[in-house]
Amino acid sequence: MENQIFQLQYALDTFYFLVCGALVMWMAAGFAMLEAGLVRSKNTTEILTKNVLLFAIACTMYLIVGYDVMYDGGMFLTDIVLDGADNADAMVAAVLKESAEAGFDGGSVYSNASDFFFQVVFVATAMSIVSGAVAERMKLWAFALFAVVMTGFIYPMEGFWTWGGGSVFGMFSLGDDFGFSDFAGSGIVHLAGATAALAGVIVLGARKGKYGPNGQINAIPGANLPLATLGTFILWMGWFGFNGGSVLKLGDIANANSVAMVFLNTNAAAAGGVIAALILARVMFGKADLTMALNGALAGLVAITAEPSTPSALAATLIGGAGGLIVVLSIVGLDKLKIDDPVGAISVHGVVGMWGLMVVPMTNDGTTFGGQFVGLLTILVWVFVTSMVVWLAIKAIMGIRVTEEEEYEGVDLAECGMEAYPEFTNK
Amino acid sequence: MENQIFQLQYALDTFYFLVCGALVMWMAAGFAMLEAGLVRSKNTTEILTKNVLLFAIACTMYLIVGYDVMYDGGMFLTDIVLDGADNADAMVAAVLKESAEAGFDGGSVYSNASDFFFQVVFVATAMSIVSGAVAERMKLWAFALFAVVMTGFIYPMEGFWTWGGGSVFGMFSLGDDFGFSDFAGSGIVHLAGATAALAGVIVLGARKGKYGPNGQINAIPGANLPLATLGTFILWMGWFGFNGGSVLKLGDIANANSVAMVFLNTNAAAAGGVIAALILARVMFGKADLTMALNGALAGLVAITAEPSTPSALAATLIGGAGGLIVVLSIVGLDKLKIDDPVGAISVHGVVGMWGLMVVPMTNDGTTFGGQFVGLLTILVWVFVTSMVVWLAIKAIMGIRVTEEEEYEGVDLAECGMEAYPEFTNK
Amino acid sequence: MENQIFQLQYALDTFYFLVCGALVMWMAAGFAMLEAGLVRSKNTTEILTKNVLLFAIACTMYLIVGYDVMYDGGMFLTDIVLDGADNADAMVAAVLKESAEAGFDGGSVYSNASDFFFQVVFVATAMSIVSGAVAERMKLWAFALFAVVMTGFIYPMEGFWTWGGGSVFGMFSLGDDFGFSDFAGSGIVHLAGATAALAGVIVLGARKGKYGPNGQINAIPGANLPLATLGTFILWMGWFGFNGGSVLKLGDIANANSVAMVFLNTNAAAAGGVIAALILARVMFGKADLTMALNGALAGLVAITAEPSTPSALAATLIGGAGGLIVVLSIVGLDKLKIDDPVGAISVHGVVGMWGLMVVPMTNDGTTFGGQFVGLLTILVWVFVTSMVVWLAIKAIMGIRVTEEEEYEGVDLAECGMEAYPEFTNK
Repeated sequence: MENQIFQLQYALDTFYFLVCGALVMWMAAGFAMLEAGLVRSKNTTEILTKNVLLFAIACTMYLIVGYDVMYDGGMFLTDIVLDGADNADAMVAAVLKESAEAGFDGGSVYSNASDFFFQVVFVATAMSIVSGAVAERMKLWAFALFAVVMTGFIYPMEGFWTWGGGSVFGMFSLGDDFGFSDFAGSGIVHLAGATAALAGVIVLGARKGKYGPNGQINAIPGANLPLATLGTFILWMGWFGFNGGSVLKLGDIANANSVAMVFLNTNAAAAGGVIAALILARVMFGKADLTMALNGALAGLVAITAEPSTPSALAATLIGGAGGLIVVLSIVGLDKLKIDDPVGAISVHGVVGMWGLMVVPMTNDGTTFGGQFVGLLTILVWVFVTSMVVWLAIKAIMGIRVTEEEEYEGVDLAECGMEAYPEFTNK
Repeated sequence: MENQIFQLQYALDTFYFLVCGALVMWMAAGFAMLEAGLVRSKNTTEILTKNVLLFAIACTMYLIVGYDVMYDGGMFLTDIVLDGADNADAMVAAVLKESAEAGFDGGSVYSNASDFFFQVVFVATAMSIVSGAVAERMKLWAFALFAVVMTGFIYPMEGFWTWGGGSVFGMFSLGDDFGFSDFAGSGIVHLAGATAALAGVIVLGARKGKYGPNGQINAIPGANLPLATLGTFILWMGWFGFNGGSVLKLGDIANANSVAMVFLNTNAAAAGGVIAALILARVMFGKADLTMALNGALAGLVAITAEPSTPSALAATLIGGAGGLIVVLSIVGLDKLKIDDPVGAISVHGVVGMWGLMVVPMTNDGTTFGGQFVGLLTILVWVFVTSMVVWLAIKAIMGIRVTEEEEYEGVDLAECGMEAYPEFTNK
Repeated sequence: MENQIFQLQYALDTFYFLVCGALVMWMAAGFAMLEAGLVRSKNTTEILTKNVLLFAIACTMYLIVGYDVMYDGGMFLTDIVLDGADNADAMVAAVLKESAEAGFDGGSVYSNASDFFFQVVFVATAMSIVSGAVAERMKLWAFALFAVVMTGFIYPMEGFWTWGGGSVFGMFSLGDDFGFSDFAGSGIVHLAGATAALAGVIVLGARKGKYGPNGQINAIPGANLPLATLGTFILWMGWFGFNGGSVLKLGDIANANSVAMVFLNTNAAAAGGVIAALILARVMFGKADLTMALNGALAGLVAITAEPSTPSALAATLIGGAGGLIVVLSIVGLDKLKIDDPVGAISVHGVVGMWGLMVVPMTNDGTTFGGQFVGLLTILVWVFVTSMVVWLAIKAIMGIRVTEEEEYEGVDLAECGMEAYPEFTNK
């Protein structure tokens, strides 16, 4: 009978992973809609194509090499296929043995395939962050090539040093030596994506007309704000899977409580981010700026991602609220530095990702500011340097930026041969 | 071993709440898209901002005061944070004791945090109903202020009298004295939201140009019907969580059957609503009116919400179908009364919400028409009176309606400083 | 205590069905958005109306007759209502007896209502496929009438011969005699829908202006590509429920592994489809054609649907990739045959559905190419002949195609009396 209980626990934990993974996959739609809503109509088809393509690349590259790099330090196709396979009786027996050893509320025992499914959608999230920042001017196939390297190597490598438990170039272990903790990936996923984006933006340069000759900054409004709002709500919902699934186990009282607290705190932080960002925008610009409210929601979510299980709900609201303030200031600040990020991805995921990492020790006793900072720096340096090398290599090989005419006409016609809204725009 | 079974049941019931709660959160996106699709393009950014903001306000206010008002009759921040906390062993022991006392298919035992998460998204739903009815003319910050009071006080109070089990001003108990039953909130959530909206619309007045000097009623078409359709599908999907989660327990045969029946009936009622509304619209207007089909779906959903567990699937289809007929007639009727509700929210959630409450005794033997009517009246009077006071107070303090020029130019520029579709509209 | 374990397994399996069913219901929104994005703006309201209506019709007809035809060979309203009903103790006892007999990892025991809910959303999927192919020219109420017959009779009949285990006209059994296997319905759902669509397109003819007098083929671009992309992402997500739920059981190790593998392979196949279709489109047309990428994703999903549990993840990627190549070639080919399918539904669901059926024996030893071919042919002939008869009958009774002026003006005004985007289009 104990066997049956372990079987149920295994099934429940597996299902929990799959549901959370499906929610994270759904975030791909969120990024696509958010970015499509915030670019101009002439660049919309292309950003949609990039989003669909990068998700496909991420899933395929992580399957072929990334997962193995991240969790085995190896470099080959993993054998995740085995556990659904022929020798079912032997497999069940092995799992039951493992469960019994782990104890009921001990280690996590669930389907390898569900673990891979959950992990693979995280890779896609990291890569989705990049597409927004380089929008409206980067070549589609150059971007695709970067996606191959990012999802097959750059991300899995820093993932190996953190969640994978590997030591950084054989020198030190972020977890063991520094107590670095990043629950669901404020740093490992969001800061990493934003850092790769920053390197790309530096290599690429700003959009034509964004910064005037006399220092003026021209707003380039997005073409479809309902779409951007929808994207934000999708991301908000998907984040329950992103953070909630990162508890990695559901099937006993302590873990179920933890998962519930994570859902609650994730929601509270997003709410705090909206309110703080909207009020600050109202004060600074005199208007209730919708795009800042949306970025505030996302900032709240990024901020709580490094540690959604230990804060109280009120603390989560405040952590998210601070994220909302930071994102508004960061977006304004990056524009002054002429770092042109059409959707604010570097601010939302990078700057606020750092805030998320550094606030962890306030509620999680097992961490220190120093340890968090070492982890932050490791991710930042690794991803920035490798990304910069890859972007520059791509630039040298095939070019990275569309021509001036293509940019003027819109990358949709140049890259995809079709307009996103052929009947709507009046030019 | 019994402990382990209780632990699994606890985990499964908690997860069920979280999944249902995530679906209800998703309804916020549904309301945002529905409303954004049904207003004119010049008022779209503002309605999106309101929808994002009200969700954030609802989550925060309910955390700070609402939940405690509703379930403890108190007025302070609840201690939901405790159950994920330090003393894990003691907490698990307490839960197991509680489980054992409740018996296997007895009371519900699950994470407090999951209960809060599920409840908090309901508050946001109630408030979402209001934003549509007052669209295209109400000041954004006046609306935000109302949201604070509605989600922190007005809704939690009537929630306390019903789901919270409290007595109405110490006079009578709706449940004990009248057998009032409102399974998932046709009255407590939907009628309440619609009643607050009605009070707002009365204070606010109709949009300029809606009603002509000689009694004519001018149609003001929505700018983006695919968006409205998407919103309706989102709401339809989210409603599975709304009604399905309201069984409050999943983890034994009887409850699992109940949850399954609720999913099935919720879907059947929506289907019935679509068919009935579309056919009636065809008969009345000569056309297959999409907006009536959408309102028919929502009406079917609202109608079944007061009791989705006892009707047969065929009965659910008919209850939803009647809702679909009622909503078409109500929308036409309210327009004759010059109650200007741009999205039909008062008809869908209010008038059909009453139908939902009153049809309960047809399939649920534990209720009576009289008892349901007392509950209906209590909600209606409470919410209408308090809302009216609050709307009038807000009007006195800061004004409630944008200026005539702002309304003419669109509230997007006045309130948010940005257009929703800057490249599309040709004026 | 064993009873309690069975109760939990029953609850978990039921919940798994409901979650998967909700995801499949969500696919209705996916089809609506995909089709609305790929037609011209003047035909958008009508396609939305059809999508909402067909879902409602499918749910109602399957309830009244279809489910009984498919699983009992009967013709009457099923008694699914019973199992949530009065005599709870007796019902629980009966279920526990059934569970004990089935053994823990033996047969599936779960709520009838959850099974119906899962099945009913499949019917709607099959019907959704039709609406896209006949878009922009078919009368709305003629379509509705076809939906009644398709969802109440044509689909349930072939479902009875396959998943229902019935023999084909008393002559042979596809499963027993031919080992025909179609896990989640590449043939039973997708090919069936596409075949009904093909018959409709043949009766209906091409859109005016699609094919020129001298053999030229005119592209008619869709009005809203972000919407089409959103629809594709929705379908991708919903497909986890579609395929994942088709394991029919979750609650033990072997089945949980199977469900996990299905989620993983479903995702991998979609990714493979995107990459293959986009690269082929780039080679053939010189551009990164977004609509082909979207159709590639859907083709990958359709291809893996006939057997998502036995391939390795890499094999699934390749099966999906082949689907992506096939769909591009098929879309080009059908256009040469002047079969006008505005959204590519016949290629995606029909041609690739056949590929999905025929590739099953490559990974599933229990099947043969011959047996799969017999099943394919049975579905194809049955659905084509019956659909053709029904389409022709509808044509004779009420006409099937809008008038030439209505088609020129757009079916939105003619059929629904309202424009989808009244403020956007500039004509």
